[in-house]
Amino acid sequence: MKQRRHKAPGLPPGTLTAPAGAYVPKTIRVIHFTADAVEEIEVPSARDVARYRDKEGVTWINLDGLGNVEMIRELGELFGLHPLALEDALTVHQRPKVDDFENHLFIVLRMLHFEADVETEQVSIFLGPNFVFTFQEHPGDCLEPVRDRLRKGTGQLRRQGADYLVYAIMDAVIDNYFPFLERVGEVVENLENDVVADPSSRTLGRVHDIKRNLLDVRRAVWPLRDAINALLRDESPLVRKPTRPYLRDCYDHTVHVLDIVETYRELAGGLMEAYLSSVSNKMNEVMKVLTVIATIFIPLTFVAGIYGMNYKWMPELGWRWGYPAVLIFMFAVAITMLIIFHRKGWLRGRKED
Amino acid sequence: MKQRRHKAPGLPPGTLTAPAGAYVPKTIRVIHFTADAVEEIEVPSARDVARYRDKEGVTWINLDGLGNVEMIRELGELFGLHPLALEDALTVHQRPKVDDFENHLFIVLRMLHFEADVETEQVSIFLGPNFVFTFQEHPGDCLEPVRDRLRKGTGQLRRQGADYLVYAIMDAVIDNYFPFLERVGEVVENLENDVVADPSSRTLGRVHDIKRNLLDVRRAVWPLRDAINALLRDESPLVRKPTRPYLRDCYDHTVHVLDIVETYRELAGGLMEAYLSSVSNKMNEVMKVLTVIATIFIPLTFVAGIYGMNYKWMPELGWRWGYPAVLIFMFAVAITMLIIFHRKGWLRGRKED
Amino acid sequence: MKQRRHKAPGLPPGTLTAPAGAYVPKTIRVIHFTADAVEEIEVPSARDVARYRDKEGVTWINLDGLGNVEMIRELGELFGLHPLALEDALTVHQRPKVDDFENHLFIVLRMLHFEADVETEQVSIFLGPNFVFTFQEHPGDCLEPVRDRLRKGTGQLRRQGADYLVYAIMDAVIDNYFPFLERVGEVVENLENDVVADPSSRTLGRVHDIKRNLLDVRRAVWPLRDAINALLRDESPLVRKPTRPYLRDCYDHTVHVLDIVETYRELAGGLMEAYLSSVSNKMNEVMKVLTVIATIFIPLTFVAGIYGMNYKWMPELGWRWGYPAVLIFMFAVAITMLIIFHRKGWLRGRKED
Amino acid sequence: MKQRRHKAPGLPPGTLTAPAGAYVPKTIRVIHFTADAVEEIEVPSARDVARYRDKEGVTWINLDGLGNVEMIRELGELFGLHPLALEDALTVHQRPKVDDFENHLFIVLRMLHFEADVETEQVSIFLGPNFVFTFQEHPGDCLEPVRDRLRKGTGQLRRQGADYLVYAIMDAVIDNYFPFLERVGEVVENLENDVVADPSSRTLGRVHDIKRNLLDVRRAVWPLRDAINALLRDESPLVRKPTRPYLRDCYDHTVHVLDIVETYRELAGGLMEAYLSSVSNKMNEVMKVLTVIATIFIPLTFVAGIYGMNYKWMPELGWRWGYPAVLIFMFAVAITMLIIFHRKGWLRGRKED
Amino acid sequence: MKQRRHKAPGLPPGTLTAPAGAYVPKTIRVIHFTADAVEEIEVPSARDVARYRDKEGVTWINLDGLGNVEMIRELGELFGLHPLALEDALTVHQRPKVDDFENHLFIVLRMLHFEADVETEQVSIFLGPNFVFTFQEHPGDCLEPVRDRLRKGTGQLRRQGADYLVYAIMDAVIDNYFPFLERVGEVVENLENDVVADPSSRTLGRVHDIKRNLLDVRRAVWPLRDAINALLRDESPLVRKPTRPYLRDCYDHTVHVLDIVETYRELAGGLMEAYLSSVSNKMNEVMKVLTVIATIFIPLTFVAGIYGMNYKWMPELGWRWGYPAVLIFMFAVAITMLIIFHRKGWLRGRKED
Repeated sequence: MKQRRHKAPGLPPGTLTAPAGAYVPKTIRVIHFTADAVEEIEVPSARDVARYRDKEGVTWINLDGLGNVEMIRELGELFGLHPLALEDALTVHQRPKVDDFENHLFIVLRMLHFEADVETEQVSIFLGPNFVFTFQEHPGDCLEPVRDRLRKGTGQLRRQGADYLVYAIMDAVIDNYFPFLERVGEVVENLENDVVADPSSRTLGRVHDIKRNLLDVRRAVWPLRDAINALLRDESPLVRKPTRPYLRDCYDHTVHVLDIVETYRELAGGLMEAYLSSVSNKMNEVMKVLTVIATIFIPLTFVAGIYGMNYKWMPELGWRWGYPAVLIFMFAVAITMLIIFHRKGWLRGRKED
Repeated sequence: MKQRRHKAPGLPPGTLTAPAGAYVPKTIRVIHFTADAVEEIEVPSARDVARYRDKEGVTWINLDGLGNVEMIRELGELFGLHPLALEDALTVHQRPKVDDFENHLFIVLRMLHFEADVETEQVSIFLGPNFVFTFQEHPGDCLEPVRDRLRKGTGQLRRQGADYLVYAIMDAVIDNYFPFLERVGEVVENLENDVVADPSSRTLGRVHDIKRNLLDVRRAVWPLRDAINALLRDESPLVRKPTRPYLRDCYDHTVHVLDIVETYRELAGGLMEAYLSSVSNKMNEVMKVLTVIATIFIPLTFVAGIYGMNYKWMPELGWRWGYPAVLIFMFAVAITMLIIFHRKGWLRGRKED
Repeated sequence: MKQRRHKAPGLPPGTLTAPAGAYVPKTIRVIHFTADAVEEIEVPSARDVARYRDKEGVTWINLDGLGNVEMIRELGELFGLHPLALEDALTVHQRPKVDDFENHLFIVLRMLHFEADVETEQVSIFLGPNFVFTFQEHPGDCLEPVRDRLRKGTGQLRRQGADYLVYAIMDAVIDNYFPFLERVGEVVENLENDVVADPSSRTLGRVHDIKRNLLDVRRAVWPLRDAINALLRDESPLVRKPTRPYLRDCYDHTVHVLDIVETYRELAGGLMEAYLSSVSNKMNEVMKVLTVIATIFIPLTFVAGIYGMNYKWMPELGWRWGYPAVLIFMFAVAITMLIIFHRKGWLRGRKED
Repeated sequence: MKQRRHKAPGLPPGTLTAPAGAYVPKTIRVIHFTADAVEEIEVPSARDVARYRDKEGVTWINLDGLGNVEMIRELGELFGLHPLALEDALTVHQRPKVDDFENHLFIVLRMLHFEADVETEQVSIFLGPNFVFTFQEHPGDCLEPVRDRLRKGTGQLRRQGADYLVYAIMDAVIDNYFPFLERVGEVVENLENDVVADPSSRTLGRVHDIKRNLLDVRRAVWPLRDAINALLRDESPLVRKPTRPYLRDCYDHTVHVLDIVETYRELAGGLMEAYLSSVSNKMNEVMKVLTVIATIFIPLTFVAGIYGMNYKWMPELGWRWGYPAVLIFMFAVAITMLIIFHRKGWLRGRKED
Repeated sequence: MKQRRHKAPGLPPGTLTAPAGAYVPKTIRVIHFTADAVEEIEVPSARDVARYRDKEGVTWINLDGLGNVEMIRELGELFGLHPLALEDALTVHQRPKVDDFENHLFIVLRMLHFEADVETEQVSIFLGPNFVFTFQEHPGDCLEPVRDRLRKGTGQLRRQGADYLVYAIMDAVIDNYFPFLERVGEVVENLENDVVADPSSRTLGRVHDIKRNLLDVRRAVWPLRDAINALLRDESPLVRKPTRPYLRDCYDHTVHVLDIVETYRELAGGLMEAYLSSVSNKMNEVMKVLTVIATIFIPLTFVAGIYGMNYKWMPELGWRWGYPAVLIFMFAVAITMLIIFHRKGWLRGRKED
């Protein structure tokens, strides 16, 4: 929800400023691999990474936090990353996109965290000929399985290039949306019962929360879909031909996520309708009771009022059976009305409505 | 509704895992045909299919269940099916699509089952130069007429190639949507009477069910339309020129299905409107009765209250004709009000509204 | 509304089956014309048409009914019509479309009939180099003026080729939508008064009918617009250059029809809003009367109730002017309330609201 | 609103018929100009115009009324105007469009008249190499400033060709939409106060009128925008290169009109919402008064009823201070209830809501 | 909201007229810079600017007010600005756009001012090979940081050409939208609490204001996005290749602004829903209280009425314990009803709903 932008308007482009409250990472995590070997180290400064620049194999440099601007500037200069891209990497709340800076691609993704609430974290990826940078906002990510595959050499990850590693990272990030959507599915199913059984405004609040979360996911995935599509269409030399089917698969997954999101949005819209209809049904039930009670007793009270008048000459009052007669008459009126109401279906309560 | 994805996030692509609770098929059904002959066998293992790979004619290999991952892997290796496509075939709840893997096309369809409820089952089709694979989730399908046409040699099915067989399968799957839509049409027609005659929340629930079913069908057919269109546009060599008019026919059918679905969705939206209007009309009728009764009897009760007061000096109470006079007065007031209400149209009940 | 499809799912494509309850035509109507002469005959069998196949001039073969499948198959074979097109011609409830089968074009239109209700009838047109086929569902059509122009030689119809005849037929079918739309315009104008003056649910039903009819027309014309556009864009050799401006005119007419339909749909949507607002206004009027009556008499009845109590010591009851005083007090209360209500605008009735 | 079409369905295309009730012009207004001179005459018949056909300079022929079909046919034949275009010029209620007939362009515009109500009048323009025709429905137009510029030689109008004159005419017609939109803006601003202060159904009617007028303007300008765009894109030789920036300016104006129209439509939609909310607020206010009065007096009347009972043994009735005590009790109950209602905010009236 | 257009319809294009009430600037601000030096002067007349026309380096000419038409015409003639562009620069309330006049680009932007209310001011930019014009409506802008960067030589602004300066100006204008959007975000967050806690019509008015402001921003940014995109796509020689990535960054910012605007519009729509639901909940609460009170006391009053009748023979009235018995009976009825209502959940008040 927060759309803060750290840069003061009018600053020169490419000015690197850490986002407010950014996490300051102590070390840079470097994974270097070839088809045969993998090396994983943590180094404290950008200079320690320099020697990987021209080394055979692929180097994955990961930074968990955007607080150390100097380190990021140094890394950028070492590997020739474009200042505008670095600025965007430091500007959290970017939309997902792919920018082609000729000697490297710059990719922005949004990683989903969901526990109590749903948060998205910006992941900026730089794809060069033999290196991959990933900048994250906080420590902790969903990329551990990718690192494990590198370490264990499962699959073809180590035998492929940097572009395949980027695919694997993107795939891991997108795959992580599915468990969230499953949970949304369960919540929607529960809410479907709740809006009918107990339509309180707390239920409504939860429907609104779900809709907002889905909106957040949609905003994170929709531009990503277009970006991957542009990547497939523009044929950058940094993405080799054998990697394209995998990117297309990635594209299919984003389409799938959007598809589910749209379905849940339609269901949430239906929940809103059901809620309003349920509230209105309950209100109608209340009104019906008032109508039935009032419609029966108001005329009877009038009759009682008649015989409560103090006229001198009211012959009925003197009759021996006047009182029982009026009681029987009142009873008959009430029964007649109840029968009429029953026929009109006004006595049927909540069971049916 | 269930959007389960079996793969754990971060697994290498092309990892084959059976979907949870997948049916384990005992045998593979193989139909091999040429223009002159047809051979239909059931074999227990993938190796028995190998000899059809380079055989003259067309081979249709059908698997009713995705539980035997090993068998699927073997078939894939034998016929050179792409691992990503195999992974998608095992990932049920895919969107319909057509992927071109150069030496074979991979097509995902959704087959409709409707008895008590509406379910869609994933059918994955692999189209090679001389073979067709169909992977289904459960035994039992709507392709028996296609098999009959192969067995009996009716039509041109046996004289055409693998692409025409795929067309025939797709056509059978899509044709199967029409009986469902006819049933939806009948339900909508019934509901149109029900929402006016008896707008209970059960009616509303059925409207919602219809809308959700139509949404499911739309989600199954909309991407299929685009996929067939892409197939026609991209001109894969696997789809020969004479088969194209048939695919275009197939495309027309998906457009037709979507057209009917949209119409029913509009009608279902109208049902919702009619329901709300009907509920509100009923409520108004109830309120009018309360108004008429209360508006007539409240003033009369007031008059009775007047003459029920115990003032010493109330001359009317001593009059000889006071009581009949007040009764006549009350009667006149009631009649006057009824006439006014009648003129305002408040006494006209449900017949007109 | 009925979306029946006659073909059983899974039948081979090109299978010709008469639609259920199809009219069986006794004869085929043939009009052959050159710039100088016109010949109009009715023949009982397809063989009698054969001699027109290679004859100089243009032949228009019209069949009023789809019940005689054998006759249609023979005609198709004689003139080389594609089986898929013939199947579509027999499948009523097709969407309008134009299919190019190289040696002939296949065009589906929907002809509008409106008397008590609105019905559309499928007209299938085959355009060959020197022949035009028109297949209709029932006898009786709106093409008589075209035949008259052929008979009398008015305009350039007889001097032009088969493509111009098809244009003339399409134009006649589309022109026939305008009188219907004029009638809709009148109905909408009447309904605009009715929803305000007398918002019964019958009015609502008529609004719904209008909306559904407009939906039907839209579904008949929208794809036709796209089809004509495709025809103009694809430049089939069967449509000669001088005929193109006329087709563009035809296209303009479909756009015009859609434009009017959209306007009426917006107006019908406004009618719905006006209806709901009118119903709610009427209900509010009813509620206001209840409020005014109840709010005035409930306090007065309470006062009467006070002096109806049987306390021994109630000094007012003994006062000489107690009764007139309480009457005057009650009257004053009622007048005060009426003045307040008048100021709040609650007494203003339907004239203003 | 009226969508009359004069042509009977099935007539041959290019049949010229005057629209029903068309104004019959007595003369044709001809303005011939070169860079140095301007000649303005009114001639009674088409033959008098013939001599301008091949004359140096540009000729603008204007006809104020479509009643004289013969005159229009003669003009068309003299200058080689396409019969279909002439038919369209006589068919009022055309959508704006641009048709390219190779030797001339045919442009349809809608001119706005607004006094009591909003009306659009069809202006048909034919643009040839050295002539411009303008056909209008009625005398009186917004083109007088263009004529003045021709007469006085201001601007570059006389130094440019026929295409620039057409631009000037189109610009004058489109510019005339802006004063109307300004008036709409004022009306919307007034209505914004009215819907809150005095939400009568007359207000609602005016909101509907505004929406319908905006819809009319939108229908007149939307296709015009597309038509001008097509004109810019298709590069007809009749529109010379230096005139293109002016046409682009014209295009910008149509986009601007649409932009304002859309804004006002959104505002009008907001007015509807505000109206409904305001009506519902007023109703709620009425209901609250009923609730407060009824809720206070119904229990009190019950208490009075208790002590109006005629039981022999009711000790309170004999008490010396019974009557004052019950009055005080009733007063206390009423005050307590008022305090509760005040706390719940039910006594706050219209000032806040 | 005001859509005034100063030009009288029908005036020749390129006629320069000052907008009504335009500010008349006293001086022209000129900033001339090369990579090494910067010169900033204020001159009183257009002639003083002439000498910068062919001078080495880039000249930025800024005019704060559109009231001096003569000065603008002179500047236009000196630098060869197109009359149509100058006319547009003087026509405030233009949509943002980019027009290519071959020897210069004409760009319209809308600058946002927000204090009490939100206003947009038109900024017209002319980009020539070595000059940049900026025309503003009023003194005071958000470009001071750009001027500072020129003065201090920070960044690469002084080393780049006129196109980069235009980028810097556009970026500053667009960056200025973000603080506004942050403020909108805060207001929306506050309103989310208000609509539930205290749904007065003042809240509703603020929701409407927010929606209208967002609409204004959207109308200012949406066409700008398309214009920048066209600039990137059309490859004008005035925009050099190294400047393109910066323009793309600018494009990304407009997309980001639109993204946030759309999100806030969705949230504002949700606020409206929440408001209506909250108002309706409050009304329901009021109605429930009426129902409960009326439903309990109306029957009890009837019972009291019974025993207030004056029949001679009413045995209960004579009973010793009749009065206590009837009181106990009434109490029991009231308690029973309360229990029933409690079970139906009608007594639960606002805490839960």
